[in-house]
Amino acid sequence: MAVTDLVNIRWLTGFTGSNALVAVLPDEVVLVTDGRYADRAAAETTARIEVGFTQPEQLKLFVSALARFDQVGAEAAKLTHTRWQALGAELPLTPADGLIEDLRRVKDADEIARITAGAAAADAALADVAPLLGSGVTEHDVRTELEYRMRLHGADGPSYDTIVASGPEHAARPHHEVTRRRIVEGDTVVIDVGGLVDGYHSDMTRSYVIGDPTARQQEIYDLVLAAQVAGMAAVAAGVPARDVDATCRTIVTDAGYADWYLHSAGHGVGLQIHEDPFEAPTSTAILRVGDVVTVEPGLYRVGLGGFRVEDLVEVTASGARALTTSPKDTPCLPSPPTT
Amino acid sequence: MAVTDLVNIRWLTGFTGSNALVAVLPDEVVLVTDGRYADRAAAETTARIEVGFTQPEQLKLFVSALARFDQVGAEAAKLTHTRWQALGAELPLTPADGLIEDLRRVKDADEIARITAGAAAADAALADVAPLLGSGVTEHDVRTELEYRMRLHGADGPSYDTIVASGPEHAARPHHEVTRRRIVEGDTVVIDVGGLVDGYHSDMTRSYVIGDPTARQQEIYDLVLAAQVAGMAAVAAGVPARDVDATCRTIVTDAGYADWYLHSAGHGVGLQIHEDPFEAPTSTAILRVGDVVTVEPGLYRVGLGGFRVEDLVEVTASGARALTTSPKDTPCLPSPPTT
Repeated sequence: MAVTDLVNIRWLTGFTGSNALVAVLPDEVVLVTDGRYADRAAAETTARIEVGFTQPEQLKLFVSALARFDQVGAEAAKLTHTRWQALGAELPLTPADGLIEDLRRVKDADEIARITAGAAAADAALADVAPLLGSGVTEHDVRTELEYRMRLHGADGPSYDTIVASGPEHAARPHHEVTRRRIVEGDTVVIDVGGLVDGYHSDMTRSYVIGDPTARQQEIYDLVLAAQVAGMAAVAAGVPARDVDATCRTIVTDAGYADWYLHSAGHGVGLQIHEDPFEAPTSTAILRVGDVVTVEPGLYRVGLGGFRVEDLVEVTASGARALTTSPKDTPCLPSPPTT
Repeated sequence: MAVTDLVNIRWLTGFTGSNALVAVLPDEVVLVTDGRYADRAAAETTARIEVGFTQPEQLKLFVSALARFDQVGAEAAKLTHTRWQALGAELPLTPADGLIEDLRRVKDADEIARITAGAAAADAALADVAPLLGSGVTEHDVRTELEYRMRLHGADGPSYDTIVASGPEHAARPHHEVTRRRIVEGDTVVIDVGGLVDGYHSDMTRSYVIGDPTARQQEIYDLVLAAQVAGMAAVAAGVPARDVDATCRTIVTDAGYADWYLHSAGHGVGLQIHEDPFEAPTSTAILRVGDVVTVEPGLYRVGLGGFRVEDLVEVTASGARALTTSPKDTPCLPSPPTT
């Protein structure tokens, strides 16, 4: 198999550089890279390393490692058409997508430790920053402080662009991008934050109301939380991933809010922030021991804003072990400073 | 033409979402996206918007916008092979790479203003942080403070993973990734930092010695600076981009350090941190008024460490206007605090 996706290469070989081609052969693994990365490759991987100083040289080394096979699997959904054409002119390529991604699902103890460290950095940063929400800060300010403090708490950086979505319009968008909007009394605020440690991601969302929640805000928050707690309780090895979504979705639908539920319940997390398995109605994945997945139902409506509650969990034989631990029992902040 | 690269779509239409297909027709531009982005597309673009709720629906809308043409240009070097196959089954695709990238080179006043704002945030952050270098901080600490302070100074975030490369080994790697190494007396330190503003990147490098430079360190720094100043002086509209590299490279080679010069002299900067034109020996590009390019020679050797000096410049009819302004006349820091 020809492996060209850098995330799959990292998982397979340990190599973290930005240029490599990997041939997985019956008897060995060959990694082709360039002169910049010869030392790093030797330090990081036990694969046989071949160094080509130009791209054509690298292609030639790669092709010669694979030339004796009648069929070579390749990542059609990741390779550009141009690169597929160049490799396909030399090798009998056949699409072989998703094989490495499937193997990557099950995390070992080292991988869980890195994800847990990233999750702990996000928990600690959120504990620092949540009390500031009522003090007149902007979405941008909150994001700035969260990403800064995750690093002070041990993360290499953010796992993704931190979401701080506030008020009747922004919080109603599941994937809002941070603006300079000032957060004010009465706002709902959705904060989606994760820390990156040694290439591994974490993912968590908590939601707030600035000041006392209205009856409707409290009702919707309680519904999201009930769906999220039930979704977590539905997680266990052997369970279809789509059942986690169905559990959350049914609770919301039964309460009359089906059309406020705009995205499915979660996804796998590892070297990528979104990876297999996906907990969506169309998913055919069955949860396995060692999967790390989010459970993150949300409800959104322009006018009210929105709420999402998300934990990251490790799938065990009997259930789910939460890796994120920030409090979620209430949408209310500690009383904001009087202004 | 079928435009599928999101950076090219943003430049062509203004649309900033994460899912779109754009058809550039003789008489209009059609943008196909999904339900999440219907509002955003309407706010951001004057293209005709078509919304498909599933991927197959989006593909169908896109194909019908292009079905009447005998030939449809597409981005073979950006599309995955799988997506090329799906589109190619419905449309007479032909590779048309680099057309939009070429148009994107020339920046208008709004684009220059965003790049300048990002550069100013990086200048201000570096002015805050450089005095800390002699105080026992780690590479990670310096990166954390730089990225935090760029945001306090107005950037949306970093343009790329900030490089802080210190000491005899790390500073000798042009693309070092930050570690927890503590910066000590005698180190060379290379800091490569840029700010992102409204999608536009900036790029700058400054280099330091902790304490008094050795004669060799001073010699190499002076040589890098001379090459960089000469490279900037070589920039003007009508000049082949490769001549900027040749100018830097000749100065270094004449001084006997050809094999310390590990990368070419620069690249364009805009919606991408690395974009056309590239100032490399193989480049065929001619600089134009409105190009924004880096000039960034460096010299690297394990043992000594390394130095790189990089400015971002706007190409004018008569020369180069610097957008980055941090001082570069000396590698020495202000005296570090006595410890």
